[in-house]
Amino acid sequence: MSEQLMKERKDAAMEKRIRESFDRQGLMRHLGAEITRVEPGLVYVCMPFREELTQQHGFFHAGATSAIADTAGGYAGFTLFPLDSSVLTVEFKINLVSPAEGDYLEAVGKVVRSGRTLTICQLEVFGVTGEQRKLVALGQQTLMCIHGKTDEQASKLV
Amino acid sequence: MSEQLMKERKDAAMEKRIRESFDRQGLMRHLGAEITRVEPGLVYVCMPFREELTQQHGFFHAGATSAIADTAGGYAGFTLFPLDSSVLTVEFKINLVSPAEGDYLEAVGKVVRSGRTLTICQLEVFGVTGEQRKLVALGQQTLMCIHGKTDEQASKLV
Amino acid sequence: MSEQLMKERKDAAMEKRIRESFDRQGLMRHLGAEITRVEPGLVYVCMPFREELTQQHGFFHAGATSAIADTAGGYAGFTLFPLDSSVLTVEFKINLVSPAEGDYLEAVGKVVRSGRTLTICQLEVFGVTGEQRKLVALGQQTLMCIHGKTDEQASKLV
Amino acid sequence: MSEQLMKERKDAAMEKRIRESFDRQGLMRHLGAEITRVEPGLVYVCMPFREELTQQHGFFHAGATSAIADTAGGYAGFTLFPLDSSVLTVEFKINLVSPAEGDYLEAVGKVVRSGRTLTICQLEVFGVTGEQRKLVALGQQTLMCIHGKTDEQASKLV
Repeated sequence: MSEQLMKERKDAAMEKRIRESFDRQGLMRHLGAEITRVEPGLVYVCMPFREELTQQHGFFHAGATSAIADTAGGYAGFTLFPLDSSVLTVEFKINLVSPAEGDYLEAVGKVVRSGRTLTICQLEVFGVTGEQRKLVALGQQTLMCIHGKTDEQASKLV
Repeated sequence: MSEQLMKERKDAAMEKRIRESFDRQGLMRHLGAEITRVEPGLVYVCMPFREELTQQHGFFHAGATSAIADTAGGYAGFTLFPLDSSVLTVEFKINLVSPAEGDYLEAVGKVVRSGRTLTICQLEVFGVTGEQRKLVALGQQTLMCIHGKTDEQASKLV
Repeated sequence: MSEQLMKERKDAAMEKRIRESFDRQGLMRHLGAEITRVEPGLVYVCMPFREELTQQHGFFHAGATSAIADTAGGYAGFTLFPLDSSVLTVEFKINLVSPAEGDYLEAVGKVVRSGRTLTICQLEVFGVTGEQRKLVALGQQTLMCIHGKTDEQASKLV
Repeated sequence: MSEQLMKERKDAAMEKRIRESFDRQGLMRHLGAEITRVEPGLVYVCMPFREELTQQHGFFHAGATSAIADTAGGYAGFTLFPLDSSVLTVEFKINLVSPAEGDYLEAVGKVVRSGRTLTICQLEVFGVTGEQRKLVALGQQTLMCIHGKTDEQASKLV
């Protein structure tokens, strides 16, 4: 098997693992969020506007914005973790830099530094309306890699 | 009217304003969250466990935990704001200190310092199971007071 | 040996370890900071006002405030770590809630949750003038315990 | 006067204002830090290694790293503020992503979003040894613009 082919298979396996984990998240389904891009160290999550996602002024709620930012970052880190591991958010910080509005929000999680135990991600969330894409939130996140336990084994429902 | 009576009326008006604003939050309803306590500088928000609130391992999702923490802090700040003002979250930081599980989560937002423009809150979230109450998240939040616009006027839906 | 005596000896050994480590910090000496209280999970650091610690308006610089807050939290965590370990700051977040002024600043680091790998601390800094003590900064910190290496062994100067 | 010339004069005035304010910071001088680059929305601060800047293991102290990160971000924001204003740090969050070592540290403050009252900056600190430049810290900062008071007028020493 060529090196290129091996890399493709590995990437496909990694993406499958991420998507299956994402599908186990009741909250993402409940919020109507979807993973739209998975690459090593980079994950996008999109969430269309619905009245069920608003704060008191009719914009996306900071909690909804944060939820997809946290998820995008967590899975961005997870793409670089070994197979027999799972991911936990240690903490994150997020600035809500402008009113969160748009047809949908797009959260981008990017790994900045990946260590054996801890991984640091940058979180960006954009409000997208037609062709326009505006930064609405910016964050920073610390993840922990739990070694020796696959994502499924870490589940308390198993 | 006695001073005591005036204070009671003022507190009742403040609580009403908070509860009406909370009721305009589509997300809180969608997550099944409720305001359970409102005092000057202090707000509690509770959210019973549902499969719709989980992350991939079956615990409450950090995004759901953060959403009620942000809301509790935001309204804790709002209790101290003038009547013709509204509240925005500038930023928050949250540590997920243990797996978020329990019959319900209880978020406590407490004002630490209230200024004319900015207010700082401490955020705590507890997982409650029967008599047990365990800290699951700890955060810190910066709020902004938007003067000259009531909460309802700030709404883009009005 | 009585239990009480054993506890006292253990606490004294712990305090000695903290103070020796503190004394190896070039920065604390350079800033004129001192450890003033060491208890399990709790450390105080004080720093008298000097022109060498100011920002452009003549108050204590946020960097100086943060430096003693980080140190107080780091050693508060370290009091609870095993003997053959050292401590690293993973991250911290700090709000500068009022102008940092006073005869001296007093930073208080308190452990909120101590785990095997990660420990979370709350950081408070007060400006003290005579009898007055005013909160000037509030923070939250994540520490990491490096097992199997004493604080001295972790030193690159050894 | 040509537009180009006007812009150059304005930039020179802005740089002068920043450098004079920096020179009023006792702490930066005490730490041996210097401003090395000033552009609209972007400021670099460098700090050569000295034993006076270390933590207990001989690396740059997180407090020293944070001090120049906060300063770089604060002045990056200040470059975009009106002339009759001054700058305050509301809060910052910083991840110490690898041991802070090198001939010197270089802090880069970059404005991500500049509003009338609040400005958000990204903070990066690099450890530089010869040709090597390694990220040692990553942060995010919220600044406040105090209108109607120049930086010098805000000084309590005036």
